[in-house]
Amino acid sequence: MKRIRMIVQYEGTNYVGWQTQPNGISIQETLEKEAAKLSGERISIQGSGRTDSGVHAYAQVAHFDTESKIPPDKWAFALNAGLPGDIRVLYSDEATPDFHARFGVEKKHYRYALQTGAHAEVFARNTSLHVHHRLDLTLMQNAAAQLVGTHDFMAFKSVGTELKSTVRSIYVSSWKQEKNMLYYDICGSGFMYNMVRILVGTMLEIGGGLRGENSIAKALESKEREDAGATAPPHGLMLMRVEYPGFDTKNILENIYGEYK
Amino acid sequence: MKRIRMIVQYEGTNYVGWQTQPNGISIQETLEKEAAKLSGERISIQGSGRTDSGVHAYAQVAHFDTESKIPPDKWAFALNAGLPGDIRVLYSDEATPDFHARFGVEKKHYRYALQTGAHAEVFARNTSLHVHHRLDLTLMQNAAAQLVGTHDFMAFKSVGTELKSTVRSIYVSSWKQEKNMLYYDICGSGFMYNMVRILVGTMLEIGGGLRGENSIAKALESKEREDAGATAPPHGLMLMRVEYPGFDTKNILENIYGEYK
Repeated sequence: MKRIRMIVQYEGTNYVGWQTQPNGISIQETLEKEAAKLSGERISIQGSGRTDSGVHAYAQVAHFDTESKIPPDKWAFALNAGLPGDIRVLYSDEATPDFHARFGVEKKHYRYALQTGAHAEVFARNTSLHVHHRLDLTLMQNAAAQLVGTHDFMAFKSVGTELKSTVRSIYVSSWKQEKNMLYYDICGSGFMYNMVRILVGTMLEIGGGLRGENSIAKALESKEREDAGATAPPHGLMLMRVEYPGFDTKNILENIYGEYK
Repeated sequence: MKRIRMIVQYEGTNYVGWQTQPNGISIQETLEKEAAKLSGERISIQGSGRTDSGVHAYAQVAHFDTESKIPPDKWAFALNAGLPGDIRVLYSDEATPDFHARFGVEKKHYRYALQTGAHAEVFARNTSLHVHHRLDLTLMQNAAAQLVGTHDFMAFKSVGTELKSTVRSIYVSSWKQEKNMLYYDICGSGFMYNMVRILVGTMLEIGGGLRGENSIAKALESKEREDAGATAPPHGLMLMRVEYPGFDTKNILENIYGEYK
């Protein structure tokens, strides 16, 4: 039995999300079906975590166990031969049996992309949110900075989500502008369902003058969902990278694709 | 009667090309139908030239005449409200009656994009050609340089195309590498049907060691189509920009979108 781990890229537009759902096709089941076809086994693929319907991944991490004789580094090529163009396995290797794509996560990096031009650019239409109104980047930058540190993110928890703890650590939280695009980069120990989208939605309301500039700090203190903003749409969000002890995904991506964004 | 001119962006993946064809939906007819709906007139839209099925435009230029009371700069917003997301009017204004999107062209800029990583990246899959084999960039750069100047491009004319002249002037012809992408930029007085794709196809064969490094110079001299390479696939090609005397599209795009690539 071998444990195969993979770096997977996907555009979430046409899927119900990473995790298999009754109401449509998921990334997970698409990968599992292809892997099962190749190995003749029933394959169960474990991702680093779910991504919602419409959310993308630049580099999701997943693992599965197999008795197949396919060499671990060839799984990427074998799977890509049958996968649709909006899902690609960028890398595969053999992991030790104690590697776990979900329980082993050290840090996750997400990016939310906004377009601020007068008209929505065609080539970024599925991977960024087009914002028509003016945004004050300084206010948004100050709000983002209030997130860094270890906080109880109860106010940014989606209604109905049950969790043991709502405390998370945020290491990076900042906006940057590149031409007509605004990118929000966040890195943390973990994120609750919809948490990044609620954070972005809150900062969009702050940047648009609909909420005060200390709304983030206030919501962290009050722990009330109503003190946070609306959930931003999924299509601007991308899981950029997942970090594990002893599995240097950044280095691997840089070796494949050159300097990593 | 007003002459409206527009800068139009589109992803060509789902169209038969710019020009209306019997076998599918074109960019031109999609724009014409939307403009006719808004003005109540029959509208005929003239582009700077055709782009083939699958070819994209970062900034195509087109014009049309109308009696409509829609203010010239509002046509972009009005059209975008009804257009599909893969076509966007980035800019509109009123032109003098002597402006002509096709006959007034001074220079055109095209870009061809290649992906050279082990696996085709998801987010560039519709706008770049994934090349699996090794390419010698120095050989391709030398070949590209042989194109600069005024030449008879008879050898790079698609079979069956009828033209008065096959002489064209090329001002820029060069490759550049950015991470795992290779971009070929060409600017010229005009291009024949398929000409850029045949040039790229020839350079791909040179870079892959299938043709000698002086093949371009040789084909320019022999004027024989068989001395040039295969036609590269359409989806890597993008019409980047069209230049006109007195219509500074570069400046307009920079004002809308920041520093222009």
